[in-house]
Amino acid sequence: MRSYWLERAWTGRGPVRDGLLVDVEDGRFTAVRSGPPGQATRLLGLTLPGLANCHSHAFHRALRGRTQLGRGTFWTWRTRMYDVAERLTPDRYFALARATYREMVATGITGVGEFHYLHHGPGGTPYDDPNVMGDALLAAAREAGIRLTLLDTCYLGSGFGAPPEGVQERFSDGTAERWAERASRRGVTWSAGSAVSPGGGDPSARVGAAVHSVRAVPRDQVPVVAAWARDRGAPLHAHLSEQVAENEACRAAYGITPTDVLAEAGALGPLTSAVHATHLTDRDVALLGGSGTSACFCPTTERDLGDGVGPSRRLRDAGSPLTVGSDSHAVIDLFEEMRAVELDERLATQERGHWPAAELLDAATGDGHRSLGFPDAGRIEPGARADLVTLDTASVRTAGTGADEATAVFAASGADVVRVLRDGVDVTVDRAEVGAELDRAVRALEED
Amino acid sequence: MRSYWLERAWTGRGPVRDGLLVDVEDGRFTAVRSGPPGQATRLLGLTLPGLANCHSHAFHRALRGRTQLGRGTFWTWRTRMYDVAERLTPDRYFALARATYREMVATGITGVGEFHYLHHGPGGTPYDDPNVMGDALLAAAREAGIRLTLLDTCYLGSGFGAPPEGVQERFSDGTAERWAERASRRGVTWSAGSAVSPGGGDPSARVGAAVHSVRAVPRDQVPVVAAWARDRGAPLHAHLSEQVAENEACRAAYGITPTDVLAEAGALGPLTSAVHATHLTDRDVALLGGSGTSACFCPTTERDLGDGVGPSRRLRDAGSPLTVGSDSHAVIDLFEEMRAVELDERLATQERGHWPAAELLDAATGDGHRSLGFPDAGRIEPGARADLVTLDTASVRTAGTGADEATAVFAASGADVVRVLRDGVDVTVDRAEVGAELDRAVRALEED
Repeated sequence: MRSYWLERAWTGRGPVRDGLLVDVEDGRFTAVRSGPPGQATRLLGLTLPGLANCHSHAFHRALRGRTQLGRGTFWTWRTRMYDVAERLTPDRYFALARATYREMVATGITGVGEFHYLHHGPGGTPYDDPNVMGDALLAAAREAGIRLTLLDTCYLGSGFGAPPEGVQERFSDGTAERWAERASRRGVTWSAGSAVSPGGGDPSARVGAAVHSVRAVPRDQVPVVAAWARDRGAPLHAHLSEQVAENEACRAAYGITPTDVLAEAGALGPLTSAVHATHLTDRDVALLGGSGTSACFCPTTERDLGDGVGPSRRLRDAGSPLTVGSDSHAVIDLFEEMRAVELDERLATQERGHWPAAELLDAATGDGHRSLGFPDAGRIEPGARADLVTLDTASVRTAGTGADEATAVFAASGADVVRVLRDGVDVTVDRAEVGAELDRAVRALEED
Repeated sequence: MRSYWLERAWTGRGPVRDGLLVDVEDGRFTAVRSGPPGQATRLLGLTLPGLANCHSHAFHRALRGRTQLGRGTFWTWRTRMYDVAERLTPDRYFALARATYREMVATGITGVGEFHYLHHGPGGTPYDDPNVMGDALLAAAREAGIRLTLLDTCYLGSGFGAPPEGVQERFSDGTAERWAERASRRGVTWSAGSAVSPGGGDPSARVGAAVHSVRAVPRDQVPVVAAWARDRGAPLHAHLSEQVAENEACRAAYGITPTDVLAEAGALGPLTSAVHATHLTDRDVALLGGSGTSACFCPTTERDLGDGVGPSRRLRDAGSPLTVGSDSHAVIDLFEEMRAVELDERLATQERGHWPAAELLDAATGDGHRSLGFPDAGRIEPGARADLVTLDTASVRTAGTGADEATAVFAASGADVVRVLRDGVDVTVDRAEVGAELDRAVRALEED
């Protein structure tokens, strides 16, 4: 058993200003109580539960700062993204993901949902082991010390009725049935009703499913993916209505909205996350909220791609828990994502005060972990997985604030994270080493 | 003479990727050339000209993370802001400003425009020395090692036709003439046609003027402030059309827009900065652009206050140079301000690619310094003031990027600044010490 004393904390149930003692055994909190530090390890500053990054494309980290040549249109971004995707081998994918996950850990992220669609070799030829790319991500997360939900993504076409083009061939399994067959081959022990572990029983990894989007998965194939996830009690994620053009194309093809397509496929529900959920009708909001589907907002990416500002508050009020993700990794900083949800809603409405800081912390901790199939993470309470993220409250950014939940959401940055425990293990990284690792991993993509 | 070798640089005229040698003498660059490092001090990473923070209310630093209680409406913010203003004495103002300016230096800011309106004692009674508050800012900047343009601000009322209320009495000189009389009493050596130095001839300080807004300065008083600045070749700044309500009240009072009020007062021109410039008519844009008035955007504050997204690109295309400011200091990070100009325009238009990174760097360096009355700062070239700001290009944020201007604008943060020279003097701060100083300065406001 190991004990920690948190000078100040936010537990998921509220703030603690006068010291909190926690005992950790076998990766879980066994006791949480107020009291003096005694012999416990002191964590000075403000300690939070572990943060959950619910939407990641790890390989996009290689795009950071690289898509702004000239004025950097959407096509600059997409060309670079596909160029990187073409150059990835299992080894490079592993190296880039490990470095990216370490950057996440450096900023207090203890769990990540990886929206993984780069399944096959050049030209779409399956590798000898058809899951070698996804397994590279599982290995990368294990070495980086981050909890991973591998969202094995079904991606079948480049648009409504259009086959995969170019590098997209590496993404496609041909049909949803063949996607399900491949995804089921992973050596996983399924345990119905709860999240599932991949081979080896690693308790810090899960496998879930994803529908890339209604653009990339035909209407009649979506139910196959939804059923696969439902049968296994596994999380199901999908990009949804990120841009107006997607909605227009969906209506033209099917006469209904992307949310309708997911709803009729039985794809909505408390284990489902709708990623972006930017351009919605009132009926879409009611369908998502009424089914308890989570809304995963990725505001720094949505700024970067010019998507617009989604109705985060209306979704929450309708019943959709909010979660957040760093998505394209233009920035990896969930503190910025949390405040961006509120700040962008302010820009859109020209009013302040939509999201209390505590609700944004819920999104980035407990609600986030739940949406990834880890309902026992993201809170500091007995029985929960022992994640602790300590913020320096005396940095140039945080000094002079209240050292409370508003500090975490409206003042701190990932650079203020000084200590990270995941499942009771100290996974704090050396930032300089991670910088060097990121540099090597991105440079490797330039080689032939 | 001292020599530096910059591994990579952005000079204001373009990128340098293969080493730049600069000589510094008496605070200015005397030579700038390519070549090997030799005996020069090596600055590894990416070195930029000094950054100019063109809009600051130093005392708002005490609000950071403090205006989000509950949902944090606009009134939460304003109540806290006025509460802090009431508690400021010359000593506390000095201490808070010095700490805030040091935080700026920590993030690579070498010059700041302080929009200063807290002139008088409680109840509006002038201090024995009526400029003691502004002089406290000049002293704070000197000790912090930052270049300061003190924008002595005329603030006469709480709204169109309404007298000052409560703490606003501390802001008001009664009339613009009495404002001019007080502002002219500062022991300044005026040199027509160029910026001016306050008493003592400190070459790193200037005095300029500001019209708080057309809300706070009656239409017939604005020309007095404008003439004062024009006669002295001094910078003139004004808050402009930050919120829709201001425009509506101005039209109701005068039948014209706030921009029209400034234009008819002779207040527009190349030495003028319109701060925010958020809600403009086409005619406003033409007036501002046609007169060469700078547009000072403060996007992190504009997000925080829910102002909306101003037409930065249209203003620039019409002839208005862009500058940036951290304003309320919810964040002090001009890297975030630079990218936020582009990213918020993307949100507003749902298109990418409005501002090349190089133009955003111009805004935060050369154009910014020029708008503060320092046309000889913000570029790395012979004869210019020797400011150098070096970014770590191997941090978790910047590693794997191109280590170029896009890195500075779209990947870096203030936390990546590792070395700062201002006018040839190394002013690099110890971040932990600045954190402690900020903490003390804000805590002092809680005491009676």
